[in-house]
Amino acid sequence: MSRSMKTIRLTVLATIAVLGLTPSMQAADPLPSWNDTAPKKAILTFVEKVTKPGSPDFVPVAERIAVFDNDGTLWSEQPMYFQILFALDRVKALAPQHPEWKEKEPFASLLKGDVKSALAGGEPTIMQIVMTTHAGMTTGEFDTIVRDWVATAKHPKTKRLYTEMVYQPMLELLAYLRANGFKTYIVSGGGVEFMRPWTERVYGIPPEQVIGSSIKTKFEMRDGKPALVRLPEINFVDDKDGKPVGINQQIGRRPIAAFGNSDGDHQMFQWTTAGGGARLAVIVHHTDAERETAYDRTSSIGRLDKALDEAQVKGWTVVDMKNDWKVIYSLQTK
Amino acid sequence: MSRSMKTIRLTVLATIAVLGLTPSMQAADPLPSWNDTAPKKAILTFVEKVTKPGSPDFVPVAERIAVFDNDGTLWSEQPMYFQILFALDRVKALAPQHPEWKEKEPFASLLKGDVKSALAGGEPTIMQIVMTTHAGMTTGEFDTIVRDWVATAKHPKTKRLYTEMVYQPMLELLAYLRANGFKTYIVSGGGVEFMRPWTERVYGIPPEQVIGSSIKTKFEMRDGKPALVRLPEINFVDDKDGKPVGINQQIGRRPIAAFGNSDGDHQMFQWTTAGGGARLAVIVHHTDAERETAYDRTSSIGRLDKALDEAQVKGWTVVDMKNDWKVIYSLQTK
Repeated sequence: MSRSMKTIRLTVLATIAVLGLTPSMQAADPLPSWNDTAPKKAILTFVEKVTKPGSPDFVPVAERIAVFDNDGTLWSEQPMYFQILFALDRVKALAPQHPEWKEKEPFASLLKGDVKSALAGGEPTIMQIVMTTHAGMTTGEFDTIVRDWVATAKHPKTKRLYTEMVYQPMLELLAYLRANGFKTYIVSGGGVEFMRPWTERVYGIPPEQVIGSSIKTKFEMRDGKPALVRLPEINFVDDKDGKPVGINQQIGRRPIAAFGNSDGDHQMFQWTTAGGGARLAVIVHHTDAERETAYDRTSSIGRLDKALDEAQVKGWTVVDMKNDWKVIYSLQTK
Repeated sequence: MSRSMKTIRLTVLATIAVLGLTPSMQAADPLPSWNDTAPKKAILTFVEKVTKPGSPDFVPVAERIAVFDNDGTLWSEQPMYFQILFALDRVKALAPQHPEWKEKEPFASLLKGDVKSALAGGEPTIMQIVMTTHAGMTTGEFDTIVRDWVATAKHPKTKRLYTEMVYQPMLELLAYLRANGFKTYIVSGGGVEFMRPWTERVYGIPPEQVIGSSIKTKFEMRDGKPALVRLPEINFVDDKDGKPVGINQQIGRRPIAAFGNSDGDHQMFQWTTAGGGARLAVIVHHTDAERETAYDRTSSIGRLDKALDEAQVKGWTVVDMKNDWKVIYSLQTK
């Protein structure tokens, strides 16, 4: 073989190996947990269009950016965002160091197990609980706290680990997109440092591809060693209008595909689909009361109303979880 | 060949091709513009240690994060930061739309070519000029403005394009690290949206691996299309204490190697080297008055004082540009 032939052969083999496109895998269904309904077809068609060399919709690998909401899109979010359940567990864990909480709301009600009364104050009360439980330690200490919780805490209804309540069809979708050269990002209203300790293991998404809400941190020397200390002050809210802002701040490119489930993702869908060329917007619609929870226009968690209306007008893809997904959670396949 | 042998062979070939480690390249000097002095040896030794399987200092590819300051580390920064020169050029370009500037400082002095008087007000004056020239447009419009400037504007002293004033030895270093599985990031006090339009072409660093200072942006609908509008308000200052904060916010992992040239990089060096395992901190010391500019402890631009002292104590690598680099700018090699 000539040197240039060798180079070409090497490159082809490398590309095949890197993309995971061995002939046997290509023949297999990349989305086995999806029924052969419209959403699956829309996804497969889009990926084929943007990856086929010579196609008018071809997109170079560097620009294949796909963004995913987390709560309600990659894992469940009922009866409330899992990060709030984490904060409530933290209040219980910290209570021995705070005897004054027995007399002080919202902690007193929480410690008696009366979550409803505790959270009756709404947003300001939730912020108070979040700041009390998420700030005051170094980033390294918080990382350890999250890892420990994720490894042991159980969901109040399913009694499963929270990381077992991720959607199997979405795991397949993440892997399928990556196998086709996409860089997959999380763009979530959840805390960025609440997600990063486990997203690589659970979703295959590394820390640098996680965008989320954050509190301010401060660099300081502690015992002669540099530390980043978490402050009880909001830095950025990565929700609604904030999602395109966070995407621009952290990625600096417009995504070509966006996946979400609520009005919190509405502006991310608008921003993504307003770019030139082929674009994909997919809404996960929670329609399955039996296998998960059914909710949309009137839910206080994960409300899906305006984005659902615009999906009809703009032709965005809506996944009907009940009819389009063979299984919901990853453990159901085992 | 058995199927498993084939798989192994494929993987090996793929790895070789992806890392660019063909035998002929491995034999060549990866840093030809560096003299064979201590800094080059320190860099080669470090990379060998962290990439050699079985080495006690081995670091998995996913954790091979290297961060680079930009001004004074990857390109020049004298007689003042190039982004300030950009802002001054923008004042001239915008002057016809602002007849009132003829009577209003600092614009009046600037338009007369008296930069010294114009900037006499120091930091607040510079901020006023930056906000006037960097805000009020969409992110897409600003991207175009920067691209046009970078393609045409010339440095006042060298009369070269600014992107020709990048350091050839550092370009080789970036390529060498990437060939060894490193992800290379810029972590600069400069504006993130001032850098992203050209860093991929010039440094091979994609937008999502550029961290910098930023102003706030606002999502809004303009003529029925979503836009991000740049506001005249600081969002984040990615300098000094801000560098570890920015790294944590955007990467979420601690780098194992950091490259800088001034006290603005001091905390980034501290944060990087405080992690476990092998660490590399490299200071580019501007010692070459003939081929570039010589400055350090007393310079108002790129002051290098405290970090230089700590380098002695901690054993950080200091590059003496005059003695350690065969050439300075990339064009000198042609």
